[in-house]
Amino acid sequence: MKLRRRVYVVGGAHTSYLGKFHPDFIWKKHPDFGVRENPTIEETLRDAVQRAFAATGVDPAEIDKGYVGNFVGELFVNQGHMGAMLAAADPKLAGKPLVRTEAACASGGVAVTACVDALQAGYDVALAAGVEIQTTVSAMIGADYLARASHYATEREIDRFTFPCLFARRAKAYKEAFGISREDIAHTVVKAYANGNRNPLAHMQAVKMTHEQASTPSESNPFFLDNELYREHMLISDCSQVSDGASAMILATDEGLARLGIDPSRCTELLSYGQATSPLGVPADPLRLDNSARAARIAFEDAGLSAADVQVAEVHDCFSITEIMMLEALGLAPEGRGASLAAEGHSHIDGRIPVNTGGGLMAFGHPVGATGIKQIVEVFRQMKGQAGDYQIPTPPTHGVTANMGGDDRTTVVTLQRNLA
Amino acid sequence: MKLRRRVYVVGGAHTSYLGKFHPDFIWKKHPDFGVRENPTIEETLRDAVQRAFAATGVDPAEIDKGYVGNFVGELFVNQGHMGAMLAAADPKLAGKPLVRTEAACASGGVAVTACVDALQAGYDVALAAGVEIQTTVSAMIGADYLARASHYATEREIDRFTFPCLFARRAKAYKEAFGISREDIAHTVVKAYANGNRNPLAHMQAVKMTHEQASTPSESNPFFLDNELYREHMLISDCSQVSDGASAMILATDEGLARLGIDPSRCTELLSYGQATSPLGVPADPLRLDNSARAARIAFEDAGLSAADVQVAEVHDCFSITEIMMLEALGLAPEGRGASLAAEGHSHIDGRIPVNTGGGLMAFGHPVGATGIKQIVEVFRQMKGQAGDYQIPTPPTHGVTANMGGDDRTTVVTLQRNLA
Repeated sequence: MKLRRRVYVVGGAHTSYLGKFHPDFIWKKHPDFGVRENPTIEETLRDAVQRAFAATGVDPAEIDKGYVGNFVGELFVNQGHMGAMLAAADPKLAGKPLVRTEAACASGGVAVTACVDALQAGYDVALAAGVEIQTTVSAMIGADYLARASHYATEREIDRFTFPCLFARRAKAYKEAFGISREDIAHTVVKAYANGNRNPLAHMQAVKMTHEQASTPSESNPFFLDNELYREHMLISDCSQVSDGASAMILATDEGLARLGIDPSRCTELLSYGQATSPLGVPADPLRLDNSARAARIAFEDAGLSAADVQVAEVHDCFSITEIMMLEALGLAPEGRGASLAAEGHSHIDGRIPVNTGGGLMAFGHPVGATGIKQIVEVFRQMKGQAGDYQIPTPPTHGVTANMGGDDRTTVVTLQRNLA
Repeated sequence: MKLRRRVYVVGGAHTSYLGKFHPDFIWKKHPDFGVRENPTIEETLRDAVQRAFAATGVDPAEIDKGYVGNFVGELFVNQGHMGAMLAAADPKLAGKPLVRTEAACASGGVAVTACVDALQAGYDVALAAGVEIQTTVSAMIGADYLARASHYATEREIDRFTFPCLFARRAKAYKEAFGISREDIAHTVVKAYANGNRNPLAHMQAVKMTHEQASTPSESNPFFLDNELYREHMLISDCSQVSDGASAMILATDEGLARLGIDPSRCTELLSYGQATSPLGVPADPLRLDNSARAARIAFEDAGLSAADVQVAEVHDCFSITEIMMLEALGLAPEGRGASLAAEGHSHIDGRIPVNTGGGLMAFGHPVGATGIKQIVEVFRQMKGQAGDYQIPTPPTHGVTANMGGDDRTTVVTLQRNLA
C-alpha cells in the first residue's frame, strides 16, 4: 500500500539494553546484588517513552494514538494489557487509544505499521513503543517462553532451546548448500560486538569478541544444543542477547508536524513499509527467508526504491545466520553471499552498506518487543548524525530496517529517507 | 476520528462457545470424556474464519489485512504469534499482513479498530478475528492468568479470584451509593440466561436460571471470594463464563465491496468507533466506567448519533454489575438506574432496547479475545434478521457495542446502522 499521507519519524530513544555482562545489570556476580534491583517493565517502558518525548520535545498531550510491542510479558513478568501500561507512562497519555501488538520478535515492527495505518487513516501524531523484560527467569525457562513464537505443538521439542535449534537447522542447510564455514559466519558476529563496544546503551558494550573466539567452540563459548543433528551449527556467540529494555518513537503527518511546531528537516520520512505473515507449522525453505523477501519487495516497490539505494541497514540478527540470510532477502547480497558483507568489510561502519551499526540484536541486545522500534530509531540517529562513537562517517540518505518474528513468519520492512 | 471512507460489516460468524455445562464440551462428567478431545486453538480459530468466509461468500484471497484478538494464549495453550496462526487458517491467507492485538478482554475490539484504521489508510478488505482457549487449566489457575489484565503487581492479591473481586468492589460501592440490592441485579443475570437458552451457539444454552437462583446464595451458586469485604457482592451467577471459542468477520470499503461483488444492502455500516485507554494501577471511580464513557462519547459524536438512536446493544457483561454500569456509561440508562432496564423488561429481546440478545458474556460465553468481534457480529445478525430464536421482532436500524478490557482500562465502542 502506497502511503497517501507522508509519515515522518520525529525521533525516538532507547533505554539501556540490560542483561548478563552489562555493567549496570544486577545479577549474582554484580557487586550490588541484593542491594538494588533491576528496573521493572513499567519503569523500563516509562523510561523509553519519557526519553522519546525529551529527545523530540513533543508534549505527550499531542499523541493521538499509540501502539506498544511486547511479546510475552504475561510469562516473564505476569503482565498483559500493555496498552493500559503505556497509558501510565505519562499522565497526559491517560484516555488515549493505546494498544499492544504481538508478533513474536516482530512485535515492535507491527506496532509501527499499525501506527502508520493510523496516520494514513487520519490521526496526526502517533507513539510507537516496544518493551520486554526477560531476565526474571533462567535461560532454559526463557527458551521455553520464547518457543511460543514457533508452532509450539510441533516445534517446541526440537531442542530445549527451540529457536537456537530452528536457526541451527537453517545454518546447517545454508552452509551445506553454499559451501561456507563457521569461520565465514564468525565475521558477522565480530562486527556486531565491535559495533556494540562503541555503543553506551548496548547490552554487550563491555564484552570483546575476536574472530577466533567467535569461530571456535570453547568453555566460554560452547555448543549448547542437545539435538545432535544441529548441535555443531550454533555457538553461544551466534545468538542474540536475552535483554531487558524498551524503545519508543514518535511519528507524525505534515499536519501533525505543524501542530507540534516541528520542521520536517528535523525528521526523516518513513517512505513505505512491507509486511508479510506466513503460517505457523507449515514447513518453509530453509535456505531463504521467503516471507521476509516478500515484505522487502513490497516496501521497495511502494517506495520506488531498490536495494542499491540504501546506505544503512538494521536487520534482524536473532542469530548470526539470520543476518546473513536477511541481507539476501533484502537484496543487499546475492543468494549464498550474505556472509561476505561482513567478511569483506562492506557492512562495517565505514563500509559501503553498514549493517546493525549499534551492535544489532547480538550485541546491542534483543528485548524482543522493543527491537522493531529500535531499528527504525537507529536509522534515524545515523541519518541525523546522532550515533556518537558508532556514527557512519557520511550520514546515509536512505536506510532500511527488517524486523522478523519467529522462524520467518512475520516480517516488517521499512524504508526511510533523510530530510534536511 | 471521523471515518473518511465508509466501512461495511460484510458479515461474520462464531464457533460454538464451549465450556463446562455445554453439551458438546468434553469434561470429566461428559460421556465422551477420554474418548475425544475439545478443539485446539488452531482448530477453533480456523473454524470461525472459515465460517465467516462461508457466511459472506468472500474468497480468502481478497483479504488485504487482518488482526486477531487474543488475550493470553501464551499461558492457556503455550502459543503466541497468533497472526501467524491466523495465516494458517486458510492457504490463501499465507503471506498477508496479519497481526495479533491484545488489550485483555478488549483484545477483539482493538483488532476491529486496527482493521478500521487499515481500511481508512487504503486497504479495502479486512479480516477481524478473535480467539481464546481457557479450559485447559483449573478455574483457580485461570483466574491467575486472567489477572494479567490488571496491574498484577498491586492488584493480584485482592483475592484468589482477582477480577471477580475487583468487580465485587464496584458492586458493593454501587449498591451502597444507589440503594440497589442483589435482587435488583439478578434480573440482568436472568435475562442473560433466558437469551442464551435460545442461542444454539451459547455456552449456557442448556442451563436455566430463575430469579430466585440468581439472587440467592446456594450450594450450586455460592459466594466464592475469600476477601471478606467483598465476598457477599459476587455470586457465581454474576460472572461471565470461562469459554473456548472464536469469532471472525469481514470488513470492507466501497472499493472492497465492488471488488467482492457484494451489494452494500447485504451489509451494515460501521459508522464510528470510540477507543480509550486508562492507566493500569491508577485508582478509578468505582461508581462509574469513566474510560468506557469516554469511548462512548467519541463514538456517538463521530457518528452524529445519541444513545436514543440505537435499538440494540451488545455490552461487556464480564459481571452482572458491569452490564448495569456500562448501560450508564453508554447513556442508555441514567446514573444509578442501569439495573432497571432488565428489571423492567426494557433490555429484553422484546423490550425497547434489547441488550446482549444472544446471552452476553454471562450466557453466550466469554472466550476473551473473541468477545469484541462477537458483539459486532451479533448486532449485524440482529439487523439482518439472522438471530433465529433470539431475533428482535423488528430488526434494529442502529446498534451499539461496548467491549472493555480489565477494570475499565481499555474500551472500544462501535456504532452500526443497517443498510437495505
